[in-house]
Amino acid sequence: MELAGLSFIGSQRGQTGSKVFHAINPATGAELEPAFQCASAAEVNTAAELAAAAFPAFCAKTGKERGAFIRAIAAEIEALGQTLTDRVMAETALPEPRVKGETARTCGQLRLFAGLIEEGSWLDARIDHADPERQPLPKPDLRSLLCGIGPVVVFGASNFPLAYSVAGGDTASALAAGCPVIVKAHSAHPGTSELIGGAVSRAVKATGMPEGVFSLIFGAGREAGMALVKHPVVCGVGFTGSRKGGRALMDAAAARPVPIPVYAEMSSINPVCLLAGALNERGAAIAAALHTSMLMGVGQFCTNPGLVLFDSSANAAPFREQLVKLTSAAACGTMLTAGICQAYQSGREKLVAHPAVKEVATATAAGGNTATPAVLETSAEAFIMNHELWDEVFGPCTLLVSCNGVAEMTLIIQSMEGQLTTAFHGTEADFAAARSLFAAAKNRAGRLIFNGYGTGLEVCPAIVHGGPYPATSDGRSTSVGTGAIMRWVRSVCWQDAPDALLPEELKEANPLGIGRLVDGKRC
Amino acid sequence: MELAGLSFIGSQRGQTGSKVFHAINPATGAELEPAFQCASAAEVNTAAELAAAAFPAFCAKTGKERGAFIRAIAAEIEALGQTLTDRVMAETALPEPRVKGETARTCGQLRLFAGLIEEGSWLDARIDHADPERQPLPKPDLRSLLCGIGPVVVFGASNFPLAYSVAGGDTASALAAGCPVIVKAHSAHPGTSELIGGAVSRAVKATGMPEGVFSLIFGAGREAGMALVKHPVVCGVGFTGSRKGGRALMDAAAARPVPIPVYAEMSSINPVCLLAGALNERGAAIAAALHTSMLMGVGQFCTNPGLVLFDSSANAAPFREQLVKLTSAAACGTMLTAGICQAYQSGREKLVAHPAVKEVATATAAGGNTATPAVLETSAEAFIMNHELWDEVFGPCTLLVSCNGVAEMTLIIQSMEGQLTTAFHGTEADFAAARSLFAAAKNRAGRLIFNGYGTGLEVCPAIVHGGPYPATSDGRSTSVGTGAIMRWVRSVCWQDAPDALLPEELKEANPLGIGRLVDGKRC
Repeated sequence: MELAGLSFIGSQRGQTGSKVFHAINPATGAELEPAFQCASAAEVNTAAELAAAAFPAFCAKTGKERGAFIRAIAAEIEALGQTLTDRVMAETALPEPRVKGETARTCGQLRLFAGLIEEGSWLDARIDHADPERQPLPKPDLRSLLCGIGPVVVFGASNFPLAYSVAGGDTASALAAGCPVIVKAHSAHPGTSELIGGAVSRAVKATGMPEGVFSLIFGAGREAGMALVKHPVVCGVGFTGSRKGGRALMDAAAARPVPIPVYAEMSSINPVCLLAGALNERGAAIAAALHTSMLMGVGQFCTNPGLVLFDSSANAAPFREQLVKLTSAAACGTMLTAGICQAYQSGREKLVAHPAVKEVATATAAGGNTATPAVLETSAEAFIMNHELWDEVFGPCTLLVSCNGVAEMTLIIQSMEGQLTTAFHGTEADFAAARSLFAAAKNRAGRLIFNGYGTGLEVCPAIVHGGPYPATSDGRSTSVGTGAIMRWVRSVCWQDAPDALLPEELKEANPLGIGRLVDGKRC
Repeated sequence: MELAGLSFIGSQRGQTGSKVFHAINPATGAELEPAFQCASAAEVNTAAELAAAAFPAFCAKTGKERGAFIRAIAAEIEALGQTLTDRVMAETALPEPRVKGETARTCGQLRLFAGLIEEGSWLDARIDHADPERQPLPKPDLRSLLCGIGPVVVFGASNFPLAYSVAGGDTASALAAGCPVIVKAHSAHPGTSELIGGAVSRAVKATGMPEGVFSLIFGAGREAGMALVKHPVVCGVGFTGSRKGGRALMDAAAARPVPIPVYAEMSSINPVCLLAGALNERGAAIAAALHTSMLMGVGQFCTNPGLVLFDSSANAAPFREQLVKLTSAAACGTMLTAGICQAYQSGREKLVAHPAVKEVATATAAGGNTATPAVLETSAEAFIMNHELWDEVFGPCTLLVSCNGVAEMTLIIQSMEGQLTTAFHGTEADFAAARSLFAAAKNRAGRLIFNGYGTGLEVCPAIVHGGPYPATSDGRSTSVGTGAIMRWVRSVCWQDAPDALLPEELKEANPLGIGRLVDGKRC
């Protein structure tokens, strides 16, 4: 499969002759072929206009029709086979099992959303029948359901080149909701993006979806992405990346003549609370599992455990000794890009240099674009006072904070910013005595984990991958699981409409047989 | 019932000695007693801090407990009886039947939300059971539900002194969701606000709700409201009012270190499309019903029909003649405030003075703070070209636009800004030929009405009172009906939590017997 290095503007490919950029193999530093052509401003505009033109027809497709389209994307991705795996590995330095696992997750996500919309009850169809005899005024017939909001812009994420990139979670949920998608490819994995873009394009054609329902834009800088966020026809934005980048998109979207929602997943250090009984009982095992979670994907997961609060009244020695032993002997994995690696090293060095922080353990540096895992430590008091210790250091680094019991842990959790996850390790007795801690964490995180870690996210209806700002820009939403479709919808209501003019899902006879709320009762 | 003119800061009353203001009777221009004391910055801050302190305990109450609280508010409001009616009439010039009707609607809304949370399935409780044997990785147990976002600020609306004010829709839905509420009273009806604030306060005490779950702030200018929107503990804002005011709140909320959602209902001219067959068949009847809708509440409804697109190929004479006759003979009702009346008169005069607009009919002016109903007309071409004709003129004024068939109507609807409602009057044959018009309107409005008007909103599960910007700041939401509770919630997920630590709604045995999504199936 030859890569052309060109954007997908609806069913057309982008032009050559503009600025180009290359992917870099982070393990070798070598430039990868081909050159990728940055889309012109005119091409970006065309992609947006095509998406707007496609929206009414795409949104009017039935759930079964859109479901077939999304299943076709998954099949086309699987058909890419080893070609895809090899390109992802070359562009990201991620190991083969991870790439194959992420491919499976990506296709699984697509099929999860296909199943959701084929079934149909996600639409929240509601019917309140008329009562012409009601006093003092007759009651009209009212029927409502959820509809797509319009064209959506999705930014590919560096750390999930498949599951949160061109055909990743945001694209899958937006297409499922009936929204055309314009993807701004992440410049760290353009070849991967082109391969997936081709798969989506073939699925558009094979299932007869309208021209413009999908475009993929290459661009080296921020220009193309910002132009899309500001484009009048764009109705929503999905982003996973840095806090600075996410906030810039939020600010631009809020300043538009017509502001639009931005779902940006930006920053989380995912506190882990180690309670006394658990530390006394199984400190070494907790350390081993923490170490595995910390190093997973070279620490480049949004759910990476960057902060460990432990009860200093317990015997923490077995935990510490095991963590020091494992960290000191840890291998240094290659990070996704040179930029991410530099940011990790400088973030870690800044922490180490902080007067209130000491280094507990570090692996032996391996040079290149590898990350040296590290465990640091500070006191609860210093952590509370020094907000610079709260910043995410994206990579395999964890800060231990010794706490004076559950009360001090609770104080820290209450004071901190929003988080994607907060984890607790405890015995039954620990948990019974920590209710205030859980209550505090519930208001600061999207997911509470008991005797486990946040890495290794399950994609299912009950998952929540989101949390108060800055974990996500809009803490009301999740980016993973079927609930993510709610990002891209609004309710529309029909009053006294003739049955023939209603969407199938709202017709009196319920021809699609979906679950509905009829006169306040679920049917 | 003596009015004190003091804010409610949790269970305390505000201090005297600061700036004061009075309510004005819009029918007479007379100042009404007592003087209302503007809350100090310290009092505003205390209200916010009390709300934050109340949130965890309030949110942890069961639906039945919060339901009892909300029902107690309704009962306390009803107990105010004629005292309330008299004060509302004096402050707003609204007629007694309207005030009594709005009182009933307000109490009905409160009980609708009480019923919703007592039943419990609105929480979207989801359970995905563990599968420890799954390959390649065991599946964890995941459970999620919706929780309140935190303290909410509600701005009382001038045009619904009860149903969208102190204990109106936003307050009812936020309290139902588990969010403490701080109301900024509208300065046009402070006495009404104090009476209702007292009712809520008594309900807080009677049902043992935590101190700070409700506060009511009096202030003459924008200072107190803006301070609340910017306060770090505030998590959401509800507003109904002018476009300028709503956008100022949106911008302030988006610029916060931690941005928060703002639900502002701002501006809508609610197009009415008159199709050819209906005009030919029953033009006079359509005009009579339009006239009633237009004059309802002296045109001060957000769903007031400000724009009528009619098919010029039909015989529009009976429609026009009836509308002219009724408008010319119409009584001039007193508007809510002198400011609203002045804005109406200048908005109407600006339209009349427009070179592309002619006056079709006007009532005889009655002076004072009354609004003179008017019907104006322009061409489709002029309407499309002159965006100043799109601005809402809040009051009993309607602009007729003669259109060259459904195609031109569709073009206008597509071009326009977001609307709360769009209405269509047609025969079966008209409707069969107007599918493109409905498709366009679906993307520009929250509610599509067939052979009716948008005024006289039904409060029920299927209603949608919202629409794309600027109808509402966040077109994904509704301000009326049970769906409004979704404004104030976020999802929280528990992973592998011991049953004892789960909220009742997620416990394995389902002790509350609520509807849940278990392993993807509704149970």
